[in-house]
Amino acid sequence: MSGRFVTFEGGEGSGKSTQIERLATRLRAEGRDVLVTREPGGTPLAESVRGLLLDGGTDAESAAAAPSPLAEAFLLEAARADLVARVLRPALAAGKIVLCDRYDDSTLAYQGGGRGLDDAMLRAMNRAATGGLAPHVTLLFDLDPDVGLGRRSRGETNRMDRESPAFHARVRARFHELAAAEPDRFVVIDASQSADVLEAQIWSAIAPRLSG
Amino acid sequence: MSGRFVTFEGGEGSGKSTQIERLATRLRAEGRDVLVTREPGGTPLAESVRGLLLDGGTDAESAAAAPSPLAEAFLLEAARADLVARVLRPALAAGKIVLCDRYDDSTLAYQGGGRGLDDAMLRAMNRAATGGLAPHVTLLFDLDPDVGLGRRSRGETNRMDRESPAFHARVRARFHELAAAEPDRFVVIDASQSADVLEAQIWSAIAPRLSG
Repeated sequence: MSGRFVTFEGGEGSGKSTQIERLATRLRAEGRDVLVTREPGGTPLAESVRGLLLDGGTDAESAAAAPSPLAEAFLLEAARADLVARVLRPALAAGKIVLCDRYDDSTLAYQGGGRGLDDAMLRAMNRAATGGLAPHVTLLFDLDPDVGLGRRSRGETNRMDRESPAFHARVRARFHELAAAEPDRFVVIDASQSADVLEAQIWSAIAPRLSG
Repeated sequence: MSGRFVTFEGGEGSGKSTQIERLATRLRAEGRDVLVTREPGGTPLAESVRGLLLDGGTDAESAAAAPSPLAEAFLLEAARADLVARVLRPALAAGKIVLCDRYDDSTLAYQGGGRGLDDAMLRAMNRAATGGLAPHVTLLFDLDPDVGLGRRSRGETNRMDRESPAFHARVRARFHELAAAEPDRFVVIDASQSADVLEAQIWSAIAPRLSG
């Protein structure tokens, strides 16, 4: 693998998408070959899975079709396995900088911290789905869930957005634990700052790590 | 768990569906409470997953959307986890006889034997998806794949049907290995016989094991 793999993690409404676009623009302006993708998604199959995962939940019929927590985890791993095989590995082998909106840490935070599924089981599933493909850098956008969800509620919401405040607090706490356990990989960003400040902080944190 | 859980395994076109219906009819005539379901499927989510798994593969666009082998395995486990939680466990807890067209042995045979995925990994995934829920009896419909696929080609085919003869031979061989390893659970049936003969053989093999 000769490219660089950067993942963006954090709660809903934390501004990841905006910053991914800004970082991609800046890297491309420097002549770098950048691929932007997301989880769940990024392949035809994975985008179909995304629909199964994030739709529904507001009426009785769609609630009945919503996946059980374990089924949700398996669906995410299916989308991940497809993305790794069809997009991430080929792009990294071609030397690209890959910017991915969410990756396997999200499973540990949302399905583990949020839904309470067993961490060891989820890590085994992550290992199988990724084949051990790990990010070089992970940017954690840390933000009070109330603030993030407040931003989201002005736009379209999905099934995760509508989880309880306690759920989102557990997700945030688990992200903190993951970052503390791997300080070399994680860069924690205070996502309550303005987009311009975030962009500058991310650039100074990331640029030196993308030259290797 | 007070009910009885019977699974039906084997290649395509081996006559499982016909025999499941006949067995259900016979059990109901005796006043037994029977639930018939299938994998992948049996819940709204799992039927959606079934569509992702079995459709496509005949033109370039649908081939690109076909899941990678590992993604396929995760999708099957997602459908299985949902079926176990929403259908199988409640039905068995209510004392029903559950007849399920395919279950976790199919993953070991198709994704393991057929596609070559690691057996230990698949067994770990099966354990997670089923939470250890194992069939009391598994009927293996054994049939030369050429015969089974010949029957299928007269009707509608799916993505699995269109796999190579070598693939289907590996699936059959893996089913034989699974049956040999668990002779108490498996009943192997020669599915080349007539439907009436099969029905009689299945009844004599199954009826005594459903009274417990």
